[in-house]
Amino acid sequence: MPYRAPVRDIAFSLTAVAGIEDVAATGGFPDYDADLLAAVLEAAGQFSEEVLAPLNRPGDLAGSKYANGSVTAAPGFADAYRQFAEGGWTGLTASAHAGGQALPKALELAAYETVQSANMAFALCPMLSLAAIEALEQVGTEHQKATYLPKLVSGEWTGAMVLTEPGAGSDLGALTATATPNGDGTYALNGQKIFITWGDHDATDNIVHLVLARLPDAPAGPKGISLFLASKFEVKDDGSLGGRNDFRPVGVEHKLGIHASPTCVMSYEGARAELVGQPNQGLAHMFVMMNNARLAVGVQGVGVAEGAYQHALAYALERRQGRSIWTGEANAPIIDHPDIRRTLAVMKSRIEAARAICFATGVAADLAQHAGSEDDRRKWKGREDLFVPIAKAWSTDVGCDVASMGVQIHGGMGFIEETGAAQYYRDARITPIYEGTNGIQAMDLVGRKLSQDGGASAKALIADMKATLKDLSGLYAGKPVERFAAAIEAVEDATHWLLDAKADAARGADVLAAADAYLKLLGDVVGGWMLAKGALAAKARLDTGDGDPAWLKGKMDLYEVYAANTLGHASSRLAAVGQGGELLSRITPEVLGA
Amino acid sequence: MPYRAPVRDIAFSLTAVAGIEDVAATGGFPDYDADLLAAVLEAAGQFSEEVLAPLNRPGDLAGSKYANGSVTAAPGFADAYRQFAEGGWTGLTASAHAGGQALPKALELAAYETVQSANMAFALCPMLSLAAIEALEQVGTEHQKATYLPKLVSGEWTGAMVLTEPGAGSDLGALTATATPNGDGTYALNGQKIFITWGDHDATDNIVHLVLARLPDAPAGPKGISLFLASKFEVKDDGSLGGRNDFRPVGVEHKLGIHASPTCVMSYEGARAELVGQPNQGLAHMFVMMNNARLAVGVQGVGVAEGAYQHALAYALERRQGRSIWTGEANAPIIDHPDIRRTLAVMKSRIEAARAICFATGVAADLAQHAGSEDDRRKWKGREDLFVPIAKAWSTDVGCDVASMGVQIHGGMGFIEETGAAQYYRDARITPIYEGTNGIQAMDLVGRKLSQDGGASAKALIADMKATLKDLSGLYAGKPVERFAAAIEAVEDATHWLLDAKADAARGADVLAAADAYLKLLGDVVGGWMLAKGALAAKARLDTGDGDPAWLKGKMDLYEVYAANTLGHASSRLAAVGQGGELLSRITPEVLGA
Repeated sequence: MPYRAPVRDIAFSLTAVAGIEDVAATGGFPDYDADLLAAVLEAAGQFSEEVLAPLNRPGDLAGSKYANGSVTAAPGFADAYRQFAEGGWTGLTASAHAGGQALPKALELAAYETVQSANMAFALCPMLSLAAIEALEQVGTEHQKATYLPKLVSGEWTGAMVLTEPGAGSDLGALTATATPNGDGTYALNGQKIFITWGDHDATDNIVHLVLARLPDAPAGPKGISLFLASKFEVKDDGSLGGRNDFRPVGVEHKLGIHASPTCVMSYEGARAELVGQPNQGLAHMFVMMNNARLAVGVQGVGVAEGAYQHALAYALERRQGRSIWTGEANAPIIDHPDIRRTLAVMKSRIEAARAICFATGVAADLAQHAGSEDDRRKWKGREDLFVPIAKAWSTDVGCDVASMGVQIHGGMGFIEETGAAQYYRDARITPIYEGTNGIQAMDLVGRKLSQDGGASAKALIADMKATLKDLSGLYAGKPVERFAAAIEAVEDATHWLLDAKADAARGADVLAAADAYLKLLGDVVGGWMLAKGALAAKARLDTGDGDPAWLKGKMDLYEVYAANTLGHASSRLAAVGQGGELLSRITPEVLGA
Repeated sequence: MPYRAPVRDIAFSLTAVAGIEDVAATGGFPDYDADLLAAVLEAAGQFSEEVLAPLNRPGDLAGSKYANGSVTAAPGFADAYRQFAEGGWTGLTASAHAGGQALPKALELAAYETVQSANMAFALCPMLSLAAIEALEQVGTEHQKATYLPKLVSGEWTGAMVLTEPGAGSDLGALTATATPNGDGTYALNGQKIFITWGDHDATDNIVHLVLARLPDAPAGPKGISLFLASKFEVKDDGSLGGRNDFRPVGVEHKLGIHASPTCVMSYEGARAELVGQPNQGLAHMFVMMNNARLAVGVQGVGVAEGAYQHALAYALERRQGRSIWTGEANAPIIDHPDIRRTLAVMKSRIEAARAICFATGVAADLAQHAGSEDDRRKWKGREDLFVPIAKAWSTDVGCDVASMGVQIHGGMGFIEETGAAQYYRDARITPIYEGTNGIQAMDLVGRKLSQDGGASAKALIADMKATLKDLSGLYAGKPVERFAAAIEAVEDATHWLLDAKADAARGADVLAAADAYLKLLGDVVGGWMLAKGALAAKARLDTGDGDPAWLKGKMDLYEVYAANTLGHASSRLAAVGQGGELLSRITPEVLGA
């Protein structure tokens, strides 16, 4: 059941829901227009379908291999990566100066969704390069930019982000890798790092590592961490590659999923490195690009969900069992059973919600940089900041849930690896974990993003949703409207409760106890808002005869499905927001059975 | 992190919540008393901890092996099975006549919970034997009982249930295997069967297959299916084994989980078989024992959840990261982060809810057979029937959800297979699928169980929950009471809505569209009822000084956790119950993207 890139749905989400025209209207992207959008999505979809999807299952079976201090990518992956780079896919948003196409972030996210659907393990390789490119563009010296950016942007080399250590995961402040000055302006890196995605491979001639480590005189904790660049091979002044640097993989992890993505244990043994940015500002430099990396993982959630969904839909159309209550047909395709139809409809409605949340976050990020006025840029930056943890966490939860529903639709066949449904279920499971667990996202949301502007961004969001609610009354009567109204009210209540709690230093545990539920509440309701905007846009297009009527009506129906099956969670999330830290403090390890 | 059987929690659930004393009070189980309960649970727990748990991860890695027409169990499994049988664990509930101990079903379920936690792949082997024993006890001839039951009850042989074919899964009526009379009272079985759990192995000398097939003159569809017994080796009149029968495995499936449980493709090529029960009554015979099989799978959900939970709890106590908001400790165990504490508390509260639902269903099954009056037996049968789909589906969803939360608590380590968290996640995923998918359970609930007595059982349940609600007001004030009240009201509304819809033949799709949400609603709310009963019982014991005060107070706190985090779902489920079949009929394959 081959993957087909849902280009029409993706384009609709970007244009009619996320509002990418607003990005174009800033004038900040002179090369971008609607035709380019269509061309990029078509080409990305075709590449994902034809080159990447066929490698997904073989890559899962073969995995990447570690032997004798180096990693070999799964069969076919190096060649596919070469084609990917030649297609220009590693340079969509990079500056023209570095050889990039300087296109909107939102469009890149949309193109990469298809890559994630087709082959998540593959997609991680360019994803990490994009993060390295962004870091260097933000804080690299001119010399570093000149030396490394063009090759990263062209995809000739890849980048790796080297943060985690066995004792330093969610708390990077605990890391212990060291960087000692060599006396010539360079540093010697020492330490062991884990969970280094595509940290070594044979798909390119060189790999550029961005590594967090401590200078000799650095303060303890998070304020004593610096960012370094270590190139696998020396880059000579003429750009050619010299000797091998002193770092190497010492193994790859045996994982639940994404087998074709090598997750390396890396050892740095006096590796020659350059400082990137300011001493002791490594975490701050990392956090600058964290928004984009987290958003990219949110899109992974969407992508893997879409892949799993298409797989399940194809099975539901093909597999015959029992009698249809609608058509009366015996031995009907199982899509004609209401419970299967409901499952597929819920899957699709949540995917479209998550997709639009991610794309809207990308649009906010683009506008935060390119909107005409500083006021607007600040407003959009607030929206971006608020949405990033939601896009990351809620979309990846959708990824796992949808992949699980996909297994379920297959019945017993879903549990058989050969069917392919199980791979989505396994692959998806990493997405709520990396780039900051979803629990960390929720803490970021309630701990920083919600209150950093006194709640202004959250209040602006509520006001925007209320405006859509008003329009929605023209489209539906009764429950589809009432449910959105009740859901917005739950967001309002929870936001006020949290802002009050945040204002009281003694209520820190109350805030943290509420974090997960508040993030899920916002995800559920903002997702509904996205589908509501889609329904309104579809109605407008229907009225003007612009587009396939059945498909446009479908957008209106999918909002109703979402309202009946997902928006109702809002009141339940609100209850959990208010549970309070005192209750949890009573649930001692003894109560938990320790 | 070794598994420790939670004997105290299990005994509490059986006695203080599920009400196993009512079973004892019937006089139907003369050998049963409280001391025996304690002894059985202690011994089962010890066996699970010491013999089965150590084989869990090695069994996952090695798997069972197929070669040359036979299956070899994973290393150590055959020996463990021999010890299991010698311990009498395959004969807890079988009749004394057949060598069993004739104990209550509820106690057997409790003992098997520990087996499931320790080693789910292993547990499937005796589970299938129990089903075969029950089938033969119900419909076997005296000769069949005498020939096969003692060896199955003693565990010398195992049983296998042989139903599914490639074209006949949820719809068994479509099956095509045939049984042709040999002229001597026996039959020749022909056909291919799939998904046959422990259909072949080397752990015992013989395997007894109970096979669904069609007689030559059988009507088409579900009314033309008969049940047959085929023994792997001929059983001679003196009880010794003779020649090999003409059926064999032709392969085992490569699965997402339970690798040590061989899932066989079986080929019957003129296999000699006996008719069991009446011709063309095979499905009816199967359904008689389906309740127990489904309930046993519900307990699997509980067991795998408990295993995953303990694994995550141990990690949360050991792994240190960040500062505790409660103690101020730097580099604190992650259990001191509110979001981790909340996750563990939610896991435990849902496990205890699911456990009590399953045990209460077992108690209802025991009382349906042994209560003093026919009226009471009918009442308990109604409760059993209503609860079985909930116990199966809701508990297995809890199993998957808790296993996923367990992975999440481990952070990046959760995705590494070596850690062991991922195995629970993979193993658990089969439980919502087999013994009737959870969608089938929901259809059974709304299609048959709810209305078979005009809704009397559902109404009796609501009345019982209201009685507990009244008592609960003496224990809590405010939200913990209000939330249960609102949840019961949602059950009442949904039940009336469904009974109305059931009364209108034109609303069949409405009923089926509501099925999943109604089952989840009942699970969420009955789970809360169970924890509320536990809290009340804990308070009573606290007042009389009967038991560890911290642990008993913990039961009261866990109800509050459940009320804040799970009971709130009720209103959302109610919304989904009312979505209607018409909406789903609009979500055509085109809308779904086909």
